[in-house]
This record gives sequence, C-alpha cells and structure tokens, in this order.
Amino acid sequence: MSQGFDKQNEVAIIGVGATPFGEHWHKNLRELALEASLTAVTEAGIRGKDIQEFYIGNMSGGMFTGQEHVAALVADFLGLNPTPAVRVEAACASGSVALRQGFMAIASGLYDLVAVGGVEKMTDVQSGWVTSILAGAMDSEWEAYFGVTFPGIYAMIAKRYMYEYGLTREQLAKVAVKNHYHGSLNPSAHLRNRITVEDVLKSPLVADPLRLFDCCPISDGAACVILAPAKMARQYTDTPIIIQACAQASDTLSLFGRRDVCTLDATKQAALQAFSQARLSPSEVDFAQVHDCFTIAELLAIEDLGFCSKGAAIKLYDEGQTYIGGKIPVNTDGGLKAAGHAVGATGVKQVVEAVKQLRGEADKGRQVEGAEVGLTHNVGGSGGTAVVTILRRGDSMS
Amino acid sequence: MSQGFDKQNEVAIIGVGATPFGEHWHKNLRELALEASLTAVTEAGIRGKDIQEFYIGNMSGGMFTGQEHVAALVADFLGLNPTPAVRVEAACASGSVALRQGFMAIASGLYDLVAVGGVEKMTDVQSGWVTSILAGAMDSEWEAYFGVTFPGIYAMIAKRYMYEYGLTREQLAKVAVKNHYHGSLNPSAHLRNRITVEDVLKSPLVADPLRLFDCCPISDGAACVILAPAKMARQYTDTPIIIQACAQASDTLSLFGRRDVCTLDATKQAALQAFSQARLSPSEVDFAQVHDCFTIAELLAIEDLGFCSKGAAIKLYDEGQTYIGGKIPVNTDGGLKAAGHAVGATGVKQVVEAVKQLRGEADKGRQVEGAEVGLTHNVGGSGGTAVVTILRRGDSMS
Repeated sequence: MSQGFDKQNEVAIIGVGATPFGEHWHKNLRELALEASLTAVTEAGIRGKDIQEFYIGNMSGGMFTGQEHVAALVADFLGLNPTPAVRVEAACASGSVALRQGFMAIASGLYDLVAVGGVEKMTDVQSGWVTSILAGAMDSEWEAYFGVTFPGIYAMIAKRYMYEYGLTREQLAKVAVKNHYHGSLNPSAHLRNRITVEDVLKSPLVADPLRLFDCCPISDGAACVILAPAKMARQYTDTPIIIQACAQASDTLSLFGRRDVCTLDATKQAALQAFSQARLSPSEVDFAQVHDCFTIAELLAIEDLGFCSKGAAIKLYDEGQTYIGGKIPVNTDGGLKAAGHAVGATGVKQVVEAVKQLRGEADKGRQVEGAEVGLTHNVGGSGGTAVVTILRRGDSMS
Repeated sequence: MSQGFDKQNEVAIIGVGATPFGEHWHKNLRELALEASLTAVTEAGIRGKDIQEFYIGNMSGGMFTGQEHVAALVADFLGLNPTPAVRVEAACASGSVALRQGFMAIASGLYDLVAVGGVEKMTDVQSGWVTSILAGAMDSEWEAYFGVTFPGIYAMIAKRYMYEYGLTREQLAKVAVKNHYHGSLNPSAHLRNRITVEDVLKSPLVADPLRLFDCCPISDGAACVILAPAKMARQYTDTPIIIQACAQASDTLSLFGRRDVCTLDATKQAALQAFSQARLSPSEVDFAQVHDCFTIAELLAIEDLGFCSKGAAIKLYDEGQTYIGGKIPVNTDGGLKAAGHAVGATGVKQVVEAVKQLRGEADKGRQVEGAEVGLTHNVGGSGGTAVVTILRRGDSMS
C-alpha cells in the first residue's frame, strides 16, 4: 500500500472568499464564481497567473443553466488561461471533492499554489424542475424514476430514525431553530429569520414527517479557497489555516442499498480516515459545519462523525450543546438550512466559514471563542459520497 | 515553483478495457462503465478492493440520462465502496482530464493503484437534443444562446482555414476517407464503412462547408485504464505501458475570444508541456490519436501538436502519410470520426487504443509496426480544454 498520505506536505489555506448564498437574479454562474475567487485571490495576495491548477465543484451547470465545461469557462473569466482547469462533480459534495483534489495536488508536492472553487446557479429554473435536477444525485433509474424526491428520501430516513430511536417531531425541529438562530447572526445567510419549534411544526408539510422549515433553501452562490504548502504559507498570510486531513468515501447512491438507512456509512468511513490522518479524536474538535440539507441529516451527521453515539444526537439539541457556546457548536453560519445550499459551492463555503472561525474573524455573536480545530462534512445525494475535512489554526499545536 | 513533475514516480498502465462505441440500446450508463472496467480490472489481475481511487470522465450524465453523481454510482456498481470516486468533467475532454487526475495521484506517490474510466450514454435522447446538450461545452450564454451549434463552430474554423491556407473541400474530405478506412479495420468501430472523397462531397450539408461525413457520430460507450507506479507494474503485467507525460491546458470556451481561430492554443500549450515532460519531440512519436470531432479538427490538431507547421497538414494527407504505414499514422482506430465519440469516454478510449498499439495487440491490418511511442490528444468544446498524453512501451528506452 502507498505511504502517500503519511509522507505528505502539510497543506495550508492562504485565502478564502464566498458570495452570500441566496437568490442572485442579477449574477450568472461565471460572475458568482468570479466574485468569490477574486476575494480569495486578493486575500492571498497572489496573481491569477501564479495559480498552477484550478479545481471547481459544480453539480449541474448543464441542467441548471445549459453550461457544462464550467472549469475552463470560469478559468477564462478569471484570466487563468492556460492553467489546467478541472470541474469535479459529486452532487452536493462537489465542492469538497474539488477541495480534496486540490489538497492532494499540494500534499503530494506536485504544486505550490492551487485554487479550489465551488459554484452553483440554481434559481434560474422553476422550482419543480430544481427538484428533478437534484434527483440526478440519487439513483435516477431505481429511485428518481419511481417518483421519489430528496425530501422523500430524507423523510424515509426520518421516519425510520423516529421509530428506532424515539425522536419526536418537536425535537427534530430544534435543529432548524438552532440553524436559523445562527443564520440570523450571519449577514451572508440566505435565510436570516429566527424561528421557533412552533413555526417549524406549523410550516407546510413537504414529505411526512418533514416540513418546509426542515428543508434547506435552493440557493445561488460561490466560494473559493487558495491552497499552498504550509511551509510557504507565511509568505502569503499571517493566519494560515492548516488542512489537517481531507478524506472521502463512497457508498450506494440508493437508500434501499444501504446496510442501515439511519447511518451514512460514507460519512463514517470518511470520518474514520480523517481523524486517523489528523491524529485527532472528535472530542478535540471545537466546531463542525455539517451537511444539514434536511434537519434529520444533521442528526445523522453528528452521530456518524463520532460526536455522539447513534440515537444520542438529540440529547445534545435538548441541552443546547450545538449552539455557539455549547459543547460542540454545529453549523455556526446557519448551515445549509439557513445560510443556504448552492449545491456545488456548499463544500467550499463550509471550509470558508471554518477558516473564518479559526482565524477569529467570524461575525459578532458567531465566533466560537478560542477555536483551534474545526471540521467540515459534506454529503452527495443521500450519502453516496461524503467528505470530511479537519482544519486547525496554523499557530496551534499539530 | 513546484518541482513536482520533475521528481515524480513514473506511471504505468497495467490494464485496459473498452466497450465498442456505437448505439447500445440495451445497455445503460452504469452497464457500459461496468463492462469496460471489468475488462481492465481483469487484464490487470487485481480485485476491485485494491483500487485506492476511482476517477471517471463523463460530460453530461445529467442532461443525457438524468444521472449526475456518476462516479459514486459506477463505483457502487463495480463493488468499489468505500473507495473515493470522483467524476471529472471538461466536455469532450472529460476522459483525459480524468486520466490526468489519476496520473497525478500515482505520479505524486499518494496512491499505488488507481482506476480511470470514461463513459457516455448519448443515444437515449433525440438527436436534435443531443446537439443542444453538446452546446453546453461552448460558452452557452455568448455562443449557444445565439443559435450556433458545434458543426457551426467548426464550420467557421474550416471556412477561415480554407481562406488562410488554401485548403480545398476535396482535400478536407481525405481526413474522413482515411479515418473510415482505419475504422473499417476496427471491429469495435461505430462506423465501419469505407468511403471515398466523392461520398463525402455528396453527403448532406450540415454547416457549410462541413457535410455529414465530416462529422463524427453520436455514440454510447465506455473505457477504463488501471494505473500503477511503473516500478510495481511488472507485478501485474508483462507489457506495462508508461505514461511518459500527461499535460492539460485551458483557453477561452468561445471561439470569438481566440487569438487565432485556426489554432487551438490549449493544444499547443498542452503539447509543449507534454513533450517537455517526456523529453521527446514530435518526430519521435510513432502514431497519434487526435481529436477529430470534425475533419477540420484533425488538421488543426496535427499542426498544433507540432507534427507539421500551420497550414501544412494537408500535404501529409495528400501524400497518405497519416495512414497506418505512413510517416505519422493518425487515428489508427478510425478516430472519433469512424470509431465513434462517446464524449466522456473518448479521451480514455484513445489511450486504450494507444496501449494496444504499443503492446503490438492492434487488430490485423491496424498495427503500427514497431511502435514505441504514441500520443493521444483530446479536446473539450472547440478548444477550451486540451489534454496531450505521451505513452511508450515499458521495455523501450526512456
């Protein structure tokens, strides 16, 4: 077996940028990507032509906007030609799968400066069609063809979870309440309204037991990070953030193919590898940005990541431990639920938020005090792909 | 600047597989990918679980079949879970961009065994819609929106080339005649009929001056190669083929943005880098598989790759030098024109053909005798992406 990841170069993030997530009627795909990338490049103090490889996560440029070949398009608009430009797709995990490719390109010593973006423009098509496009992330022939949508898939998970572990409808609502509270403190969030458990319970039913306020919104947005070897990072920034690990795993696209519908094995596998690479345990993580496309997904995530045992997540919510200031703050920017979900951009945007937290630059009221280690977790489909990234402050102990 | 590609591990191909390209009405996307991959895995004598990373090139699973998240889907069907599975997209260059990611994963020392596939299922939608989907490879807002199709784009290139370099309509037809001749010797080719210059000139006009027989067909198909460090390759095969170089470049998606519409700068840049990495010159290449989506594209390719100067390609065709047995055999399997173009698979399929040539395993009448060095060239869109790969026999001099 390869010794590759043991002898790797340490990888640092030296610049980040993200657009607000939301309805950007006046900006197209390439303009969103440009906005996020220029912020990141400017932060890093580099020029476009210094970038040796450009990765971008994008789920469905083709179906959302008629545009494939997105990486070269954005690279051109950024003035990067003839730099190699690579679009990576793994449904809603596209952004973090792109990040992992960039991480490997630096960790391996092949490159010294890599840009990783993520972008999605989702609001230019009618909303029913968005749901159909997103169904391309599941097994289209054996799931989508028979009429199930993602709210339906996650509703089945939620039903089973409630049956197995005694989760109540009111408890599930607490995930949304917490994420909207965090989102209310985030000027870049798609949804900034605070909500109550009652608001969730009174919101329209989407797929029993999931209601509107259990579901993340459909967003436009982009994010970008600039990567360099840690040993060179101080040339660019006083606050490098180290990617301690970035691990990815695959599983069946179909829910019916799973060992256990209440567990995302891809998350478990990616987390095991990431914690092993980072030589850290979940208890050493100061905050986590997890993939909460639906409220139930956040509960699965924190269990499968190892923050608590299976079925025990809701206790953390009953105790308020996932709020900023709690034992393990989850989705400090509001998560997909409130900060928004521009699918191809989400994985990179989670990392942008983690970097801001680790630098101590989060907005007022959202800063996790003294945060030294953060984790991001990004899922494709209902768990066909999962990526777990562990980040730490460049000046903290390894 | 990174020294990465100077200190790399040498990368070998230890197994290959491809489906015939054509109309596979009875096989879906995952079945095509499975067929090609099983052949490659069997050739390499490995088990699926030995594979440490799986890349797959696919242009438009979403638009052609409603299926995104293609890498995890295929990985599941291949029994590779939880191996990381990464779909890569760069329009018609998706396959070779995936190959390059696999090449980097081995060259860098991160991994010891990587599978790279390419797949496209194009014939399940009506043909007019295929043209619209393919237009996602150009600048959708500034080219496709105004009604131009790829035949139109390449027709503009051909018109200008004829004006600049005095190419005649009859001469251009010779590219198709040669590729159909090679295709007639290839049992896996999509089109196996031999044609004459007159056949081309009498075929229906598609976009002046391009006629039906100037255009490649729309194909279903898949291909796969297994990569390992060259130093380990003999464990798996007696005939390892070395990837001497794999280089990629980007350019504007739009034709109107180019310095010169008769030159693909992305091809030139990728070729320069590839020949530099390989420490070889074009005269040392024994055959080339180039991106002939339209006849005119093959002429640009062999010029931009450095096999002759700009405007001089047609002389090679007048003299028959691009036939097997000529000075520089081009598209020994029939190329995209006759062997077929399953867009996301094409870049990998070109490499499969090159490997068979270098092993001396090409079909009767198609073997380039004594071939030691081969080149593949794959283009996305009208040149927004280009990848050039140089391969040599594992037992030949480096």
